[in-house]
Amino acid sequence: MMLIKNGIITNDDRQFKSDVLIENGKVKEIGLNLQVPVDTEIIDAEGSLLIPGGIDPHTHFQLPFMGTVAVDDFDIGTKASIAGGTTFIIDFVIPTKGQSLIAAYDQWRKWADEKVNCDYSLHVAITWWSEQVSKEMEILVKERGVNSFKVFMAYKNSFMINDEEMYQVFKRCKELGALAQVHAENGDLVHEGQKKVLEMGITGPEGHELSRPEECEAEATNRAITIANRVNTPVYIVHVMSKGAAEVIVKHKKEGKKVYGEPIAAGLGVDGTHMWNKDWRHAAAYVMGPPIRPDPQTKEILMDYLASGDLSCVGTDNCTFCADQKAMGKDDFTKIPNGVNGVEDRMSIVWDKGVNTGKLTPCEFVRATSTAAAKIFNVYPQKGRIDVGSDADIVIWDPKKTKTISKETHHHACDFNIFEGMNVTGIAVTTIVKGKVVWSNNTLSTVKGSGKFVPRLPFGSVFDGITQRDQVRNELLRKVEREPYTGKVFQPETK
Amino acid sequence: MMLIKNGIITNDDRQFKSDVLIENGKVKEIGLNLQVPVDTEIIDAEGSLLIPGGIDPHTHFQLPFMGTVAVDDFDIGTKASIAGGTTFIIDFVIPTKGQSLIAAYDQWRKWADEKVNCDYSLHVAITWWSEQVSKEMEILVKERGVNSFKVFMAYKNSFMINDEEMYQVFKRCKELGALAQVHAENGDLVHEGQKKVLEMGITGPEGHELSRPEECEAEATNRAITIANRVNTPVYIVHVMSKGAAEVIVKHKKEGKKVYGEPIAAGLGVDGTHMWNKDWRHAAAYVMGPPIRPDPQTKEILMDYLASGDLSCVGTDNCTFCADQKAMGKDDFTKIPNGVNGVEDRMSIVWDKGVNTGKLTPCEFVRATSTAAAKIFNVYPQKGRIDVGSDADIVIWDPKKTKTISKETHHHACDFNIFEGMNVTGIAVTTIVKGKVVWSNNTLSTVKGSGKFVPRLPFGSVFDGITQRDQVRNELLRKVEREPYTGKVFQPETK
Amino acid sequence: MMLIKNGIITNDDRQFKSDVLIENGKVKEIGLNLQVPVDTEIIDAEGSLLIPGGIDPHTHFQLPFMGTVAVDDFDIGTKASIAGGTTFIIDFVIPTKGQSLIAAYDQWRKWADEKVNCDYSLHVAITWWSEQVSKEMEILVKERGVNSFKVFMAYKNSFMINDEEMYQVFKRCKELGALAQVHAENGDLVHEGQKKVLEMGITGPEGHELSRPEECEAEATNRAITIANRVNTPVYIVHVMSKGAAEVIVKHKKEGKKVYGEPIAAGLGVDGTHMWNKDWRHAAAYVMGPPIRPDPQTKEILMDYLASGDLSCVGTDNCTFCADQKAMGKDDFTKIPNGVNGVEDRMSIVWDKGVNTGKLTPCEFVRATSTAAAKIFNVYPQKGRIDVGSDADIVIWDPKKTKTISKETHHHACDFNIFEGMNVTGIAVTTIVKGKVVWSNNTLSTVKGSGKFVPRLPFGSVFDGITQRDQVRNELLRKVEREPYTGKVFQPETK
Amino acid sequence: MMLIKNGIITNDDRQFKSDVLIENGKVKEIGLNLQVPVDTEIIDAEGSLLIPGGIDPHTHFQLPFMGTVAVDDFDIGTKASIAGGTTFIIDFVIPTKGQSLIAAYDQWRKWADEKVNCDYSLHVAITWWSEQVSKEMEILVKERGVNSFKVFMAYKNSFMINDEEMYQVFKRCKELGALAQVHAENGDLVHEGQKKVLEMGITGPEGHELSRPEECEAEATNRAITIANRVNTPVYIVHVMSKGAAEVIVKHKKEGKKVYGEPIAAGLGVDGTHMWNKDWRHAAAYVMGPPIRPDPQTKEILMDYLASGDLSCVGTDNCTFCADQKAMGKDDFTKIPNGVNGVEDRMSIVWDKGVNTGKLTPCEFVRATSTAAAKIFNVYPQKGRIDVGSDADIVIWDPKKTKTISKETHHHACDFNIFEGMNVTGIAVTTIVKGKVVWSNNTLSTVKGSGKFVPRLPFGSVFDGITQRDQVRNELLRKVEREPYTGKVFQPETK
Repeated sequence: MMLIKNGIITNDDRQFKSDVLIENGKVKEIGLNLQVPVDTEIIDAEGSLLIPGGIDPHTHFQLPFMGTVAVDDFDIGTKASIAGGTTFIIDFVIPTKGQSLIAAYDQWRKWADEKVNCDYSLHVAITWWSEQVSKEMEILVKERGVNSFKVFMAYKNSFMINDEEMYQVFKRCKELGALAQVHAENGDLVHEGQKKVLEMGITGPEGHELSRPEECEAEATNRAITIANRVNTPVYIVHVMSKGAAEVIVKHKKEGKKVYGEPIAAGLGVDGTHMWNKDWRHAAAYVMGPPIRPDPQTKEILMDYLASGDLSCVGTDNCTFCADQKAMGKDDFTKIPNGVNGVEDRMSIVWDKGVNTGKLTPCEFVRATSTAAAKIFNVYPQKGRIDVGSDADIVIWDPKKTKTISKETHHHACDFNIFEGMNVTGIAVTTIVKGKVVWSNNTLSTVKGSGKFVPRLPFGSVFDGITQRDQVRNELLRKVEREPYTGKVFQPETK
Repeated sequence: MMLIKNGIITNDDRQFKSDVLIENGKVKEIGLNLQVPVDTEIIDAEGSLLIPGGIDPHTHFQLPFMGTVAVDDFDIGTKASIAGGTTFIIDFVIPTKGQSLIAAYDQWRKWADEKVNCDYSLHVAITWWSEQVSKEMEILVKERGVNSFKVFMAYKNSFMINDEEMYQVFKRCKELGALAQVHAENGDLVHEGQKKVLEMGITGPEGHELSRPEECEAEATNRAITIANRVNTPVYIVHVMSKGAAEVIVKHKKEGKKVYGEPIAAGLGVDGTHMWNKDWRHAAAYVMGPPIRPDPQTKEILMDYLASGDLSCVGTDNCTFCADQKAMGKDDFTKIPNGVNGVEDRMSIVWDKGVNTGKLTPCEFVRATSTAAAKIFNVYPQKGRIDVGSDADIVIWDPKKTKTISKETHHHACDFNIFEGMNVTGIAVTTIVKGKVVWSNNTLSTVKGSGKFVPRLPFGSVFDGITQRDQVRNELLRKVEREPYTGKVFQPETK
Repeated sequence: MMLIKNGIITNDDRQFKSDVLIENGKVKEIGLNLQVPVDTEIIDAEGSLLIPGGIDPHTHFQLPFMGTVAVDDFDIGTKASIAGGTTFIIDFVIPTKGQSLIAAYDQWRKWADEKVNCDYSLHVAITWWSEQVSKEMEILVKERGVNSFKVFMAYKNSFMINDEEMYQVFKRCKELGALAQVHAENGDLVHEGQKKVLEMGITGPEGHELSRPEECEAEATNRAITIANRVNTPVYIVHVMSKGAAEVIVKHKKEGKKVYGEPIAAGLGVDGTHMWNKDWRHAAAYVMGPPIRPDPQTKEILMDYLASGDLSCVGTDNCTFCADQKAMGKDDFTKIPNGVNGVEDRMSIVWDKGVNTGKLTPCEFVRATSTAAAKIFNVYPQKGRIDVGSDADIVIWDPKKTKTISKETHHHACDFNIFEGMNVTGIAVTTIVKGKVVWSNNTLSTVKGSGKFVPRLPFGSVFDGITQRDQVRNELLRKVEREPYTGKVFQPETK
Repeated sequence: MMLIKNGIITNDDRQFKSDVLIENGKVKEIGLNLQVPVDTEIIDAEGSLLIPGGIDPHTHFQLPFMGTVAVDDFDIGTKASIAGGTTFIIDFVIPTKGQSLIAAYDQWRKWADEKVNCDYSLHVAITWWSEQVSKEMEILVKERGVNSFKVFMAYKNSFMINDEEMYQVFKRCKELGALAQVHAENGDLVHEGQKKVLEMGITGPEGHELSRPEECEAEATNRAITIANRVNTPVYIVHVMSKGAAEVIVKHKKEGKKVYGEPIAAGLGVDGTHMWNKDWRHAAAYVMGPPIRPDPQTKEILMDYLASGDLSCVGTDNCTFCADQKAMGKDDFTKIPNGVNGVEDRMSIVWDKGVNTGKLTPCEFVRATSTAAAKIFNVYPQKGRIDVGSDADIVIWDPKKTKTISKETHHHACDFNIFEGMNVTGIAVTTIVKGKVVWSNNTLSTVKGSGKFVPRLPFGSVFDGITQRDQVRNELLRKVEREPYTGKVFQPETK
């Protein structure tokens, strides 16, 4: 047993002084002056906050992508997570076009199960459409613990699917009770933009943003939400990177649609002017899709929307590549492997930019970094809350402690950190995973492969109300009863 | 002890099967298969939902107003509340201009303490401004359990205060950690509108809305939020009745401002076309300010905003008058006492129009009718949640059971019900107040005067982040250091 | 020579009392007390307005469509136009997929030249894409007087093209100085919607709207404008039928984009609830795409946007079919030939719904029904203005005269009028085409084939500023000068 | 007679090659190859544009203000205007509280008539309200050529009036057919802001903006438009300085309201960061109300709205003070006389920032700098258009010629120019006032006192549609006919 004393439990609904008693990886009791056995391990939180371990719903550990493989594997990646206060990640299985979803899923499970230092779960991408895909989606949902599928509207000639296919995927998601996720960029416009920018002689990383500006993202976001609404199924927009896309989400939410938007650490913490940096390697480090926008106000606006609940939960799209990998695109920005770090620094970035500015309250911070994702992806309250019966994934968060982010000290495998040199106040001083201290005194004590795959059930709370909405719609879809038309009917001549 | 079995606890964050053990008016334990003493009273919820008792943050019981007194007193009013599943109400102390706030507060306490059948609390209105008012606000906050003050932008020559006074009130609220509340209508425009409409010969209830259309409300809402933002203090708009006003709130929330909007049962359940009813008494029954809008889409839009969280919590402005009282304005709509019922039907209206249409999930219903108000007014989690340690204000809610609302069966003192004839599905079958069943089998078993005044502490969670925001602003309010100007200075001639 | 006396010239910029002297089909002089030869024909306008003849930029006379041919041919169609005060129409050449654009154009010219009773011009639709199409576009612009091309985002498997093709068409339009026009509906969603609605057993005309609701139109409108903006070329959205689509246009215009929106007479004059009419023939008469929306506020909103200049000019999409033709879809709404009347009633509808309500001033009426289209399609001031040197296409407009619209009295070939029974105040009492009275005393005196094709030059005023915008953009598209990356480059293993 | 040859006439509706023949101060003929007498003065425009002389609807020449007098008097001010291509200005009579409007008007006429070098007109401010003011408004409209009245919502304790008074002024404006103009800032918030900022020790010019940020302007703009709409009279917002205020105008215009917004040269040409300049004199030079906003995007957005027609016409608020005058506020920014230059540079600023960027077409430039104001203030087409019969106020505009703006070369009396050092392309090479060349070869040849007061008639085109709107509203304001209420009526006890 373990007792955390002198902390202030900070869930998404309130803050209160309380000790936490842990047994067998779960929270056993909450309260002050708890009765505990003599041999209980005591941890003194010293007035710091106790928050539910962070949840990063968007990572790509050891992803094979653009001719290489992301360097943060499931071991390193989850270590970095833990060092930053994140104790649960959801990664993406990405089958190639034509590949069996199950086969890809099995591959990812194998990669992850052997290495993860904390619990994890898996989304699956749908990169092609067929009867087989439809059937495998069912198996994944019913037998493999998957309740979310992502489609790509970009990456033409690779992952991208068209509107008709997207409609079919969304319909299938709805039938299965799975959440549809979308990478929203207009792939045709990106493709044309890349051609144009390269033709103008712009081959450096700045070409990445110039070839796919905000409106490509905003347009696709609007289209995805419209299609999902036609199907009447909830939709989740991954990596909302621009003001334009965020405004689209807000607009649709105001109309009562079931939309969830995910800003990421990169988008909240830095701006895209780095891609104009004179040092190619520096500039290339910031290349990800959709691009981090150069307008410095973007991160402020995204944070405002996160505070108001119009954006839901913070991911990272953590997908890291070293200099030599990025250099595959040294003469052509379209060949730079897309991806940035984030999983380690996400929590501190959100606290520093959100709570320290008064945009977010501490409770809203917990909602944004943990609870909302747990609910959306249906692992709540096992994850995302400190409560009796929940997993003992707990972080002791010191809101006054400061650190300087650097590649010299980070736990990623990559040789660059997009937040390099940033001083952040508010950090994870101790991370407890399933009742075990795995990060303390700046030291990891994780056990590779000790994390578990967390199966997620379909028809989570994001589906609440969908049936009633269908009923309301069907009432409008009412046939008018009429006398049959009995007049003349024009007969076209047959040629 | 009491054990509620076979229910589905439905808090604002999730639904789960669980029994609830109650002792001494509080929730003692939650879980399945709880160990209980043999003499424990067992209540079978039969698969229904267990929800935290409703909170109505806006009532006016036995209010002296417009020359008469509202007929629902604190006894009748709280009985009606309980019959509808509401177990906590917050009423308004409304001093007259020049009256001591403390004296008025004491009067209201006396009225209420003797009669309430459930717990209650009090907001205080600021209808004039002076040094004395400022001091009494402090006493009310520090010694009398008040943490919210309302101002009126309408009721010219009576409750209305001007912008300068409003600014002072808001500043004082901020210093004290109290929430500023606003009745937002442009009183000058209302006044001019009334004159104009009466001059046109329109003396009936329809003149009420015609003289103060949506834009009067939207304008004042915008002004109130702007003034509050200048002060950097949170602001709560009572009875948001129109699309225009709601959109103003949404716009400001998107910009990160601390704004809370309160739709009411009347605005969510009916439309204002009733004021055009041929029967004068019927029409007059719907007169309240700001008016219920005639556009039938308004209630849909308000519900959408409630679902998205842009509007926060549902009140009623319950302030009931009988036919003879309304008839004081039979020849002049400006003399019709303003007010409608709502406290009894609020919960069923929101469930029926919200959950049954898929706009709200059951959890969002709980948030909107109970939890959000508890948080905003700082009585959470004593109220607003079923959890260990919370007050045992619990409602057994049958989502399938139906009733027809009628003045024949309601528990109000008034002889009209604005929801007359409406069939609602989703009702409170049993209401438990502080561990006692007070409503069951359509029968009340309340005890007059048994409710308690709940003091509310200042600096609730609505104030989280305000200090940081002040710091951020003060950084912008930085003096430029300059060399002094040494040139010539124009000297105006003295006359 | 002809002298019109006692009229009030009403151009889009002002109204003033003035006589008009006409010679050789052109306005020769304007002013009071003009010196004229003794044999001058005198027409007394009797205090009515003199307005530039209406321009309908969107007609489909004798269009082969959906297995039949529209019954208003170029003779009947232009007669109906003239009877309503419209003296210039622009029709659409619509090649089939694979057909030569020039061949189609020649066909349409032949059809029209023999029959038109007033001047006309031609847009050309691009229904497929190839090198040949690109070349023929150039010929049409440089040699055939075409400066506008339309694409369809709907009519899947027929006229519809995809985003990539649309991008190419827009690029080509820009190079040639031609205006891109778009039928904006998401064809995939329409297709899926039709399948769904038919599967539900809804086969009647109401299924038309139910299968392609507003959001299909709004989405496509947003996409089209985004693509056009990526190309930096002006874009014109034909038949804006919904609030949602109109709001999309407004949003983009506010951001400075070159967008033009065209409401039509049907959308301004009636609502789509007619498709729910119990009489099948009545209901079918209102079927056109995008659908006339059932929300009765839509026409009000579209008129407001027309008044504010956010929508530009009023067309009709006149494409008429008789009962027997509509009846081809008596068992399946997707087979009902799409199209409504409008060319005759357009002017009176806009006056009655716009000017008589105070939404439009008389000058704005002229802008909306004539001048704006003349400018956009580059025939101004030959058309669209009463001024010295302009074509003498002039209408004597009596703003107080009333008529009842009816199929019994209209000049269309179709056996239904969607405005049947509507009383409109404000009508064309006399229509003068190129200096000849062709409509007076409710009598036509047109000459079949007397109208001329008006060639339109490219690079009209809609292209003003495009070059500067390209320059501004190109300044942003600046390459960052960097030292070459000299580090290691990852070499993927070759398999 | 004078003939301008080889120019391109550029009115707001089109551009065309044409010569212009002038006689007696008016345009006599337009066209190519005009027959002219031998002694006609020929001016060669050399391919430049001929534009209607600019109209500045907002100047304050020799205004007594804040204890001193603006240094550009009507002589110097109109000279500067002419040198920049502006040939007609509208200044403001500003009575003090309690002063006779007629007396003030007579004073201003006297000041101006003796000095103006071009035509001018006068608005009158309403700084107090009484029966006398109401009567004098009528005299000014009916006998003195005034058709526009301005109110101030700011300058508390000086010019500011309250909502009730504003309502009365607007009503009176409507009766008289005069346009209501508004300086829109919340005077109470400004007052509180000034106190607060001074208390923080900020006494320099930056305090000016910090004490009255955007939301003070946006709020008042919204309130003014709402009040005007309640009255149903058109309203004109002078000096729209912020994105927030502009968005308010756009919002209301979209709803069909009659609103006109006036950006000014300062707001389109520079940003307010100058107020943070380390040199006090520099910083103070930019102090005007509402403040020029520090956000550099503001001027872009205002220009976009000007292009889309959402903002109507460009003024300057030219009100210049020298260093010694500004220095009256050297220790307290609230004492710095408010005002900037602009009348000379307005046209070039708008061309350079608008046309050279592709935001405005040349025709839109003419609309924005001349024609729109002429229409709104009802002097069109005497002013604002080059057409037969119009005043020969014509500017030869060279769109390629460049100059550097500087106080060294400007024609103002002030010792600072807020556009100092700005290179602008597009300048007035020749200015012709009423048929006389008064500016050419960088040399003025004006005649002091030669300009005339132009009386303006009420009920201009901004009032078109108001009567119909009143009718539409009155139809909604319909009394419900009812049986009288016959029941009991509550009788309040008399105390």
